[in-house]
Amino acid sequence: MAEIERMIYMDHAATTAVDRRVLAAMLPYWTDHYGNPSGVYRLAREASRAMEQARETVATILNCKPREIVFTSCGSESDNLALRGVAFAQRARGKGNHLITTPIEHHAVLHTAEELRDRFGFELTLVPVDRYGVVHPDDVARVIRDDTVLISVMYANNEVGTIEPIAEIGAIARERGIPFHTDAVQAGGVLPLNVDDLKVDLLSLSAHKFYGPKGVGLLYVRDGVPLWPMQTGGGHERNRRAGTENVPYIVGLATALKLAYEEAEENNRRIAALRDRLIAGVLDRIPEAHLNGHPLQRLPNNANFTFRYTEGEAILIQLDLLGVAASSGSACSTGAVEPSHVLRAMGVPPEEAFGSLRLTLGRENSEEDVDTVLEVLPPIVERLRAISPLYEARERGSG
Amino acid sequence: MAEIERMIYMDHAATTAVDRRVLAAMLPYWTDHYGNPSGVYRLAREASRAMEQARETVATILNCKPREIVFTSCGSESDNLALRGVAFAQRARGKGNHLITTPIEHHAVLHTAEELRDRFGFELTLVPVDRYGVVHPDDVARVIRDDTVLISVMYANNEVGTIEPIAEIGAIARERGIPFHTDAVQAGGVLPLNVDDLKVDLLSLSAHKFYGPKGVGLLYVRDGVPLWPMQTGGGHERNRRAGTENVPYIVGLATALKLAYEEAEENNRRIAALRDRLIAGVLDRIPEAHLNGHPLQRLPNNANFTFRYTEGEAILIQLDLLGVAASSGSACSTGAVEPSHVLRAMGVPPEEAFGSLRLTLGRENSEEDVDTVLEVLPPIVERLRAISPLYEARERGSG
Repeated sequence: MAEIERMIYMDHAATTAVDRRVLAAMLPYWTDHYGNPSGVYRLAREASRAMEQARETVATILNCKPREIVFTSCGSESDNLALRGVAFAQRARGKGNHLITTPIEHHAVLHTAEELRDRFGFELTLVPVDRYGVVHPDDVARVIRDDTVLISVMYANNEVGTIEPIAEIGAIARERGIPFHTDAVQAGGVLPLNVDDLKVDLLSLSAHKFYGPKGVGLLYVRDGVPLWPMQTGGGHERNRRAGTENVPYIVGLATALKLAYEEAEENNRRIAALRDRLIAGVLDRIPEAHLNGHPLQRLPNNANFTFRYTEGEAILIQLDLLGVAASSGSACSTGAVEPSHVLRAMGVPPEEAFGSLRLTLGRENSEEDVDTVLEVLPPIVERLRAISPLYEARERGSG
Repeated sequence: MAEIERMIYMDHAATTAVDRRVLAAMLPYWTDHYGNPSGVYRLAREASRAMEQARETVATILNCKPREIVFTSCGSESDNLALRGVAFAQRARGKGNHLITTPIEHHAVLHTAEELRDRFGFELTLVPVDRYGVVHPDDVARVIRDDTVLISVMYANNEVGTIEPIAEIGAIARERGIPFHTDAVQAGGVLPLNVDDLKVDLLSLSAHKFYGPKGVGLLYVRDGVPLWPMQTGGGHERNRRAGTENVPYIVGLATALKLAYEEAEENNRRIAALRDRLIAGVLDRIPEAHLNGHPLQRLPNNANFTFRYTEGEAILIQLDLLGVAASSGSACSTGAVEPSHVLRAMGVPPEEAFGSLRLTLGRENSEEDVDTVLEVLPPIVERLRAISPLYEARERGSG
């Protein structure tokens, strides 16, 4: 097996490199236009103006009012602010106590909903998904109650790439007068974000998924949606998020989002073709390989596979040795390897939910990268299966 | 009056320019070592290693364990996490419901404490301060109750520069077994941060006050102090702060803090001399000028004055026209001009609490800057008084 000379990065769902044009846009705000936007002097006004211009840029893309944008420190903060902010504000208004979300959400939504249930006395319903990870609008409608105060369904799943029918769910939520939040972190820069078309009231984005920096995100909050701030102090962001604004990153987020949508059509087409080549090649060359997520309604950059009788972590380590950066569906930021909660919710048995491999493509990937992965991956799976007692047992069983 | 050709920045308590050495340290992490630290491949390990090295650098300066450092998105988040995190965790353990802080805290503490009172059922006691803005340890001891779960007193005041007797208050808190938090945002990079000497259990810092970027801070949390996360999701920061880490800014924070303390002795001496020249000059040249804050126990860079019969905002606008960036004690981030809550707590009557001018010096200021301000400020105050009805009335009264 040939060693790969350069790194092949196929973990764009985890994070992306900052686009050099984005870095260039941010640079003056650290050392030259460094004013605190709350000041009353020229240096402060420059910073404030840059920030408000960024807000307008973003608002144009989301088709909303600039004042409906709250800049945050990341997608997780946006999700937390949406859930905690609306849940507490709604309860205080006597609207009720019941939250609806899905079992395939990012942990920033799922754990926050669970925390609201376990520590703050809310009730929580998780809407089941089908084997492709699709949330069916009827299933959402079925669990709505008179005391439901918030529905949160992600736009596209971060592990398996399935795109959810957000506008249909939004229509149902709107009919019942319930605020509807979508975690659009994986959709940002790729899928349309028009909040009226999507019929959403709150929407989370994170810049580092679309070639902006890690450490800045936003929450769209439709005018009139009640929201308690999660972080209190100064009156920043119209009293919805206290703290001195990270002006360079806000400029960076807007620049990255604008570039992403200017180039989305071309990038999506090119990357989807690479993805299809990758998926076809893997399914063709590796026996008992399974594509997770919806075969058609999926993010253009996402390929997620299960290879029976292998563990995702073991594949990743082998790929890393060859210079390929990828990820498994399993949560590993705590050091504990657990089966993917997304695959489990889709009905994948636990022993297979350990075995997933997520390859997420991006701007810098080429056909050559895909072909290299198609060359190195099959022997890795084969070798891991060769040392797997389960695989051996299965061989004997079928032999 | 001579026009000033370049800007004179005297609002370092609001924010500072990013040190070019700090920017240089951050740069590789946006475009080259851009990995998500949660990944299992080389690019991720590089990012993770840089972050853990930053944590060690910070821990050395604070004299604590690296794992006791939680990186956050700003000083306000750190303060919120300290107050909300400890208050909720302590209450859940049945420790009680009572919080103690002071009326001169930054709004990130004060408004958060008020929110915990008004929205989450905590009880709150504000310990009074004297006319210099000093919190007396005896006054803290007096209001401690059996159900007190947290004491929060700032290290140095952001408006008037008064340094508080943190170690003495910490000794009292420790004797009573109550977690003690200090908002050290204004002290960072300037005053000693040894958490054992200070006898603190939680300490907030914000990088942009010591020539690091806006949008990153930290909370020191002593091992064993109960803390609920404020932002939930992934297991980042040992389950104390979910969200993909802002690696470049974390590196920047550590670099800035290290540089600040390597150069603190020299910078503090030089800047304090400038401050003393500024204070002496203002008090000498402007009649009925008053220095706010403690005359000796104050931050080396802070000068805060009240000029009777003038409004702070009006002075700022005049200074801005001449290229001098300064601030007033009054909160203006919401657009509403209110008398300073700090001066009010110190017993300054409301009409005078509108009139303060805060000049905070920094690394790039020179004697020439100070002399220029001493030249342009007296005529500004004089002209404003000339059009003040109150000043006129007083003239007639004494004439």
